[in-house]
Amino acid sequence: MKMSLKIRTITVAVALGICAVVPTHAEESTPVKVIIDADPGVDDAMAILFALQSPAVEVIGITTVFGNTAIDNATANALTLVDLVGASVPVARGAEHPLVKDLREPPAFVHGADGLGEVGLQKPVGKVIEKAAAQFIVDMARQYPGEITLVPVGPLTNIALALGIEPRLPQLIKEVVLMGGAARVEGNVSPVAEANIFGDPHAADIVFKTPWRVTMVGLDVTTRVRMEDDLLERIAKANPKLGEFIWSITRFYKKFYESRGVYGGFYVHDPSAIAYVIDPGLFETETARVRVVPEGLAEGQTITAIGTPPAFWTAWYQAPDVEVCLGVDAEAMLALYESTLSR
Amino acid sequence: MKMSLKIRTITVAVALGICAVVPTHAEESTPVKVIIDADPGVDDAMAILFALQSPAVEVIGITTVFGNTAIDNATANALTLVDLVGASVPVARGAEHPLVKDLREPPAFVHGADGLGEVGLQKPVGKVIEKAAAQFIVDMARQYPGEITLVPVGPLTNIALALGIEPRLPQLIKEVVLMGGAARVEGNVSPVAEANIFGDPHAADIVFKTPWRVTMVGLDVTTRVRMEDDLLERIAKANPKLGEFIWSITRFYKKFYESRGVYGGFYVHDPSAIAYVIDPGLFETETARVRVVPEGLAEGQTITAIGTPPAFWTAWYQAPDVEVCLGVDAEAMLALYESTLSR
Repeated sequence: MKMSLKIRTITVAVALGICAVVPTHAEESTPVKVIIDADPGVDDAMAILFALQSPAVEVIGITTVFGNTAIDNATANALTLVDLVGASVPVARGAEHPLVKDLREPPAFVHGADGLGEVGLQKPVGKVIEKAAAQFIVDMARQYPGEITLVPVGPLTNIALALGIEPRLPQLIKEVVLMGGAARVEGNVSPVAEANIFGDPHAADIVFKTPWRVTMVGLDVTTRVRMEDDLLERIAKANPKLGEFIWSITRFYKKFYESRGVYGGFYVHDPSAIAYVIDPGLFETETARVRVVPEGLAEGQTITAIGTPPAFWTAWYQAPDVEVCLGVDAEAMLALYESTLSR
Repeated sequence: MKMSLKIRTITVAVALGICAVVPTHAEESTPVKVIIDADPGVDDAMAILFALQSPAVEVIGITTVFGNTAIDNATANALTLVDLVGASVPVARGAEHPLVKDLREPPAFVHGADGLGEVGLQKPVGKVIEKAAAQFIVDMARQYPGEITLVPVGPLTNIALALGIEPRLPQLIKEVVLMGGAARVEGNVSPVAEANIFGDPHAADIVFKTPWRVTMVGLDVTTRVRMEDDLLERIAKANPKLGEFIWSITRFYKKFYESRGVYGGFYVHDPSAIAYVIDPGLFETETARVRVVPEGLAEGQTITAIGTPPAFWTAWYQAPDVEVCLGVDAEAMLALYESTLSR
């Protein structure tokens, strides 16, 4: 199954003239150490459970951030997910507001007032660790130099704070795989801005200006993957504990998408970043330079110059290379999600 | 010829799901009254000669603006073109700097230091009229209410000034067909900005926020049309007076494109706006809302929301509809240019 998938992906990539011959993490013997930085959030929860269930991933911590819901909710929800799986994964509370701009009302109409679909969840049993998210990220990076993949799936505030307290972080982190942005497709909070980047555009610009390995998993790919109830029903049958939980928290979220005219499966943005960590071969990427607009009409836009920009596009010419996902094998990604959650 | 072209265009449009059944001005009995607002500029000159030669167009005036070259050059060049054709078309001098932002050095590396390819042109014989461009536009609109098509192919400063001195202008003007902007393609002065709009983004935003009929002929279509020397040679044979002039002024411009890696024909942006006026059926358009970013990383970007945007995209939801050109029958447009200039 995996072999045939890989061959197909490479064939598609070659046909499109995109280089996608990258190692498949799932085929490596040791799992990838990841820290997930999230604002759960329905699709964040689906991403966290995906990572916690995957044998290809070792979640060494979850850090929380404001975004889809207030920081108190996001943190409680992260603890609830760890409780649910019975994992011993530290959870560190992170930023409650953006670096520079004012905090805006969270989108309760998307994720519910509690951030997880208003299904009446109990308070979690687990507790957060003492350290702030940014300090936790720095400490883990020092403990496992060159080993950690950061997977931010919310506003990038904690990552910018971590870079602020440890300028050597880029040399200590293996890579950053973030869900956010839109290169060639329309945004979702404005015609040009994606919600996570819009949540803290100043922090996002810091991340994209930093010379480390960054992969942007944005709306260009996440809006090509639609999850249908059939798949969630099959997971619920195969793994009732997680499957029924996911089924219940996604009802509110699904209604939001239907209210926006998205039927026949809804977008689950954040799991795409985890899918990239597990199997980058599912995605087609191009090398680009990305800068983020901090304010105004284009606030939160990830302006993406594919390839090497001309020198007079100074802001991009001076920026480091970033890998931007522009294509995804949606069917294979959904199959990977289903097989992983059904374990 | 025209009939088969029209049928092909509609077929393509239907296949793409784009509505393009629009009247063809060329089939109307009386020519369209136009005022061309330009910053000649090599491709501006090609556009002005296109309009002056077309039986479907009556050029009732040319207004000038800074942009491709300083206002003195742009105005002299407009007069030179009128001299060349021997037309009795008034030329009104317009804005020498943008509304709000500072004037930047003109791109002499594209159009030459004189704006027309440094071929050693004589000073023009003709003189400008006494009125400023904005006043001329307003006076003509009052004289021919509902009849005039404004065709700006430079920064939109004069148009914004005209709207400032006559708020009823939108009711007096038939329509605006402008060359500028980029909806779904990369910009040319930044990853997101096109040069004319970048030249005066504040003025451009005024134009796009005004409730009148505006058609944006931007890089989405102009970069799909490449003019080759073969075509220019044929025009020079058929109509040496104009053809040899166009040949000579385009040499510098062509070299610029070659220096940017554009071979096998160069872009001639501004004639596309004239082509739209003559035969809108050559283009596929979509209805959209456009707002322009005034400053910052995205300065000069025409952020385009296709269709009716959701209410929470406030800036676009509140903006009027604009027609945005997204497709063009390049072969037919080039044929129209050749046949018109060969007359």
